[in-house]
Amino acid sequence: MLVRLTYCSRAVPAVDHEELVAIMKKSRANNLRAGITGVLCFSDGFFIQVFEGGRAAVNQLYGRIVVDGRHSDVTLLGYEEVAERRYAGWAMGQANMARLNPALLLKYSERASLDPYALSQRAVIALFDELVATAAIMCPGS
Amino acid sequence: MLVRLTYCSRAVPAVDHEELVAIMKKSRANNLRAGITGVLCFSDGFFIQVFEGGRAAVNQLYGRIVVDGRHSDVTLLGYEEVAERRYAGWAMGQANMARLNPALLLKYSERASLDPYALSQRAVIALFDELVATAAIMCPGS
Amino acid sequence: MLVRLTYCSRAVPAVDHEELVAIMKKSRANNLRAGITGVLCFSDGFFIQVFEGGRAAVNQLYGRIVVDGRHSDVTLLGYEEVAERRYAGWAMGQANMARLNPALLLKYSERASLDPYALSQRAVIALFDELVATAAIMCPGS
Amino acid sequence: MLVRLTYCSRAVPAVDHEELVAIMKKSRANNLRAGITGVLCFSDGFFIQVFEGGRAAVNQLYGRIVVDGRHSDVTLLGYEEVAERRYAGWAMGQANMARLNPALLLKYSERASLDPYALSQRAVIALFDELVATAAIMCPGS
Amino acid sequence: MLVRLTYCSRAVPAVDHEELVAIMKKSRANNLRAGITGVLCFSDGFFIQVFEGGRAAVNQLYGRIVVDGRHSDVTLLGYEEVAERRYAGWAMGQANMARLNPALLLKYSERASLDPYALSQRAVIALFDELVATAAIMCPGS
Amino acid sequence: MLVRLTYCSRAVPAVDHEELVAIMKKSRANNLRAGITGVLCFSDGFFIQVFEGGRAAVNQLYGRIVVDGRHSDVTLLGYEEVAERRYAGWAMGQANMARLNPALLLKYSERASLDPYALSQRAVIALFDELVATAAIMCPGS
Amino acid sequence: MLVRLTYCSRAVPAVDHEELVAIMKKSRANNLRAGITGVLCFSDGFFIQVFEGGRAAVNQLYGRIVVDGRHSDVTLLGYEEVAERRYAGWAMGQANMARLNPALLLKYSERASLDPYALSQRAVIALFDELVATAAIMCPGS
Amino acid sequence: MLVRLTYCSRAVPAVDHEELVAIMKKSRANNLRAGITGVLCFSDGFFIQVFEGGRAAVNQLYGRIVVDGRHSDVTLLGYEEVAERRYAGWAMGQANMARLNPALLLKYSERASLDPYALSQRAVIALFDELVATAAIMCPGS
Amino acid sequence: MLVRLTYCSRAVPAVDHEELVAIMKKSRANNLRAGITGVLCFSDGFFIQVFEGGRAAVNQLYGRIVVDGRHSDVTLLGYEEVAERRYAGWAMGQANMARLNPALLLKYSERASLDPYALSQRAVIALFDELVATAAIMCPGS
Amino acid sequence: MLVRLTYCSRAVPAVDHEELVAIMKKSRANNLRAGITGVLCFSDGFFIQVFEGGRAAVNQLYGRIVVDGRHSDVTLLGYEEVAERRYAGWAMGQANMARLNPALLLKYSERASLDPYALSQRAVIALFDELVATAAIMCPGS
Repeated sequence: MLVRLTYCSRAVPAVDHEELVAIMKKSRANNLRAGITGVLCFSDGFFIQVFEGGRAAVNQLYGRIVVDGRHSDVTLLGYEEVAERRYAGWAMGQANMARLNPALLLKYSERASLDPYALSQRAVIALFDELVATAAIMCPGS
Repeated sequence: MLVRLTYCSRAVPAVDHEELVAIMKKSRANNLRAGITGVLCFSDGFFIQVFEGGRAAVNQLYGRIVVDGRHSDVTLLGYEEVAERRYAGWAMGQANMARLNPALLLKYSERASLDPYALSQRAVIALFDELVATAAIMCPGS
Repeated sequence: MLVRLTYCSRAVPAVDHEELVAIMKKSRANNLRAGITGVLCFSDGFFIQVFEGGRAAVNQLYGRIVVDGRHSDVTLLGYEEVAERRYAGWAMGQANMARLNPALLLKYSERASLDPYALSQRAVIALFDELVATAAIMCPGS
Repeated sequence: MLVRLTYCSRAVPAVDHEELVAIMKKSRANNLRAGITGVLCFSDGFFIQVFEGGRAAVNQLYGRIVVDGRHSDVTLLGYEEVAERRYAGWAMGQANMARLNPALLLKYSERASLDPYALSQRAVIALFDELVATAAIMCPGS
Repeated sequence: MLVRLTYCSRAVPAVDHEELVAIMKKSRANNLRAGITGVLCFSDGFFIQVFEGGRAAVNQLYGRIVVDGRHSDVTLLGYEEVAERRYAGWAMGQANMARLNPALLLKYSERASLDPYALSQRAVIALFDELVATAAIMCPGS
Repeated sequence: MLVRLTYCSRAVPAVDHEELVAIMKKSRANNLRAGITGVLCFSDGFFIQVFEGGRAAVNQLYGRIVVDGRHSDVTLLGYEEVAERRYAGWAMGQANMARLNPALLLKYSERASLDPYALSQRAVIALFDELVATAAIMCPGS
Repeated sequence: MLVRLTYCSRAVPAVDHEELVAIMKKSRANNLRAGITGVLCFSDGFFIQVFEGGRAAVNQLYGRIVVDGRHSDVTLLGYEEVAERRYAGWAMGQANMARLNPALLLKYSERASLDPYALSQRAVIALFDELVATAAIMCPGS
Repeated sequence: MLVRLTYCSRAVPAVDHEELVAIMKKSRANNLRAGITGVLCFSDGFFIQVFEGGRAAVNQLYGRIVVDGRHSDVTLLGYEEVAERRYAGWAMGQANMARLNPALLLKYSERASLDPYALSQRAVIALFDELVATAAIMCPGS
Repeated sequence: MLVRLTYCSRAVPAVDHEELVAIMKKSRANNLRAGITGVLCFSDGFFIQVFEGGRAAVNQLYGRIVVDGRHSDVTLLGYEEVAERRYAGWAMGQANMARLNPALLLKYSERASLDPYALSQRAVIALFDELVATAAIMCPGS
Repeated sequence: MLVRLTYCSRAVPAVDHEELVAIMKKSRANNLRAGITGVLCFSDGFFIQVFEGGRAAVNQLYGRIVVDGRHSDVTLLGYEEVAERRYAGWAMGQANMARLNPALLLKYSERASLDPYALSQRAVIALFDELVATAAIMCPGS
């Protein structure tokens, strides 16, 4: 049984870009073993991540994120059984948030700055789809 | 929560083109701060305006218009929660009504002259969409 | 409130092409004043006409046709409120029935000759749409 | 082919109740011969009537109403082909408008008084249906 | 053209029950003249009101509420053209909020206390419908 | 924003009935403060629980369950935004699994014993709804 | 493969009631052998009949009716494959047309007399269903 | 009223190609007079034919086919009222079955040979549409 | 994963009622162990059976039936994944075909005798549902 | 009546590529005679096959596969009546699994290796469709 899970969280202040790269690198290796694929966005101190895989593997990974000290206010945005993956080709892509222009943020939010907690789930997911569609997805370190 | 509001009003006689330009200029600055986007049509002594933004900001702006002495017979044409903005890229565009041809007006109204109060909401909004689609939207002073 | 009205009638024998041209010329001027637009077909002694406009104007025009001695057996084929006109650009176009081929007539009728009374409303309107789409619409005298 | 036609009109001032009764009596006899059935409402100087029958018979009757000096501003409210009649059992019923309460009028109109011209077709027809459903339909003189 | 408008607001502290009764009494008389009907809820310092009527009358009334010093943060919750009224029988009913039990509030809100601004429009309207359905609607002073 | 979350987990062996009662008692007090409502099933060493509330409160509670040593293999079965709660009246009901008959279990599972991990989400939720509908929901300690 | 066939025809003048009874009696025996079921209406010199059965048997029976000298103008009103019969219990019922009241005929036809050829297929079939539903179906001679 | 009728039949052995050509030639002349259009397929000793026209004309033609000694096992495959013809341009086209490849036959039948009686109506009509679409339609003798 | 499988077969002549009872008795014990539930019909030398359970268990049972010398012409009538069982309460019920009346058979078949191979799958399943609904389901030997 | 059947099975270890080629060759000849068409996938010790044809022929072929010693754990994945074949052109194509990339497998399964038993029917069929669409279908030996 395949599931897709989307969450957002606040990065604790100590997380910087180097640490992020290290996290990504390690998580890609783990994900390959666990059959997890997906995309991670990191911007303005927020994480938004979607990942897909077997139900047990996805719940184990989410359990590790919930207890991971680098995330706070971990909040589910969506969770559903899926017949097929949307991100089967990415061990864990990274969305380049620097390419976001203000109009794209305004399209879904009240102000021109990213705050996933202030949006409805539907808006976050639509924004996320546009990020995936328009921002280059990188696989740094791969 | 994002909402979209459409209204029409009669301009009091004293409003001339210079004053309109001044209004637009000032409102653009205010709108940017408040996260408001949208389009304003001014023609034949009528205003038709649509604007989008956070629910509180949109209601505050509409409250100021209702009490603004330059508008009379301010009348709501539509109001709805929206998942995403349609005019996210315009601080406040201005539709060039001079480009309207008579057939476009006849398409939605009984006579070939603009009277938003004589039309159903659905017709006004369809007309407005055609204005946005076919008339050039200008951002004078920006 | 906009409405669209379609009717057919038999022309009394005395109506010839010159009279028709005169009728069309006069009606165009009237229609412009009344905000009426539409298309008229005249063929084989039958009129089929569709016109659109404000509800009062359309009913006044239809009332004049009903009492007009040049029409007999005036019969409504359709009448409905519409959100927008389909023929906003024509003061009163004239469909060129000479371009009709027999297969087009057979498509909607039992025999290869035009008799609007022998058809259902749906078939007449579909035939009429094909006339508008394929026959040239002329505006003689305009 | 069966059709249903709904119209409203203003009664010219000279029409009083006795004349109305005479009209109804005569029209019932004519309707039986022509296969016409339906219901007539007369109130506050307005007629609202719906009748059903063969297409030719219905158009002939409507043509007589249009030229009848006792009606002015005769206006179509609806016209459609129908697979079956709704009023097959009434040669021409008469709706008792005296039973209308203000809340029923307010349900469909801006003010608590009847003006069929100020309403959309949909509202008139819904009001008419409630009249038929709740007011007693009389067949005076039958 | 009929419209229905729903808004909420905060009552300024000085509004007490006696003033509310006076407001209601006066507004009922005004509403009857203007053809306005609807229901008003007042609880915990919030107003939630829905009213219906002609488009001009409804917008005039809403304009007076926006500038009324006893309301602050006046916020539209819904506005739509309607084919018929839902509250045609009430000059202005008053919902008895004291009958609300906590489970009903929890059904639509995060906490067991009323805060219309913290809810989506859909939730407010559903809550409002339950209030109308289950709480007694009173017409004090009528 | 209200959400509903359903999960299942295995109870670690040390959890006995007394501990369960203590857990339930404490969680009811916490839930009331946090605005959480729902139902808990405990049977054959499995927990199945559904709870509803504000998005932040629900995610905080789920985070505590994920790290709670008395649960293992905590697995999401469903998560969605909801317009209204289904369990607004229960601080945390407890489903009496002893009333389950084998046919009810067979209806959704391959064998006549409960194993929520062997079922699809849809089947677990349907089974859960039948539990809520047919088994008595108790509120021990309340 | 089961099919249902509906036709109408004119009875040649020589067919009287006795002959009809004889026809019905013989056809029932044949129908039982052929697995044909259905209902026959005979009124005002018209037959309307529906019968169901295997495709071959139904076509053989219809072929015999087409060449039967007692029927003229035999005309198909409907023919379709069906998953199940509607008249499985009647070897060949006979609808009692004497119970038809004028309003039922007017419901589907322009005049208060039966002429199946003047009606659309949809109207004939609706009329037929009402006959089956309201008139007593007899099985004379059975 | 227009109808479309589809049937299949077995040709009696004596029918050869010359006779078929003669049949087609004569039927085209008759069809033009009767306003009948359509397509005839003849292959492997089977006829499959579809024709359209007025209801009376179509039933008269079908009646002649049923009693025609050159057809046996005449079986209706479909019959329906239509708003417009599909074959308005062909007095009676002839489908060239020699262009059928085995895969096309297998697509709709159990074996790679044509037997219209072994197929469901839906399959025959789909096959027939592909014949019309892919095989050249000839009008020999026209 | 639950599936439902329906098949029919011909019983080899040697199967008599006693053997059938023995088969049923044994299969009930096996089914309980395998988590299989369902209903078996035996009539006129045909078996029609539906059974539900885990996908592996259902396929193993169907494999044994295919090779069982007492069945010939074993033919699948339906097979589908199901979210829940319809026959969760019967280890293997037995439909009493003696209660079938001829009209019920005629409803789905060309002749008044049972031949499941002559019917479409849809008809067999509808017939089967009526058997289950109207005939008594017995559990002999239980 | 046409049906389509999909199954998977494990190949017993002794099956090697040469034997597979021999199987395919022989089955193609048989299939042509029986009117069977379809596609066979063989990979990683699993068979996934879909075939279409007459209901009797398809069930006979499936019966032979169930008892064939080279297959174990033969499991139905789908079975349905179809109006037309999808694989009418292939006596029995062979899907080239070597062209499968890991992302395609991950799209439908938890791990990047093929195990048809671990997937839902829907996922297997979607995967199979992509194999047919993207992998070259070969007809070795034809």
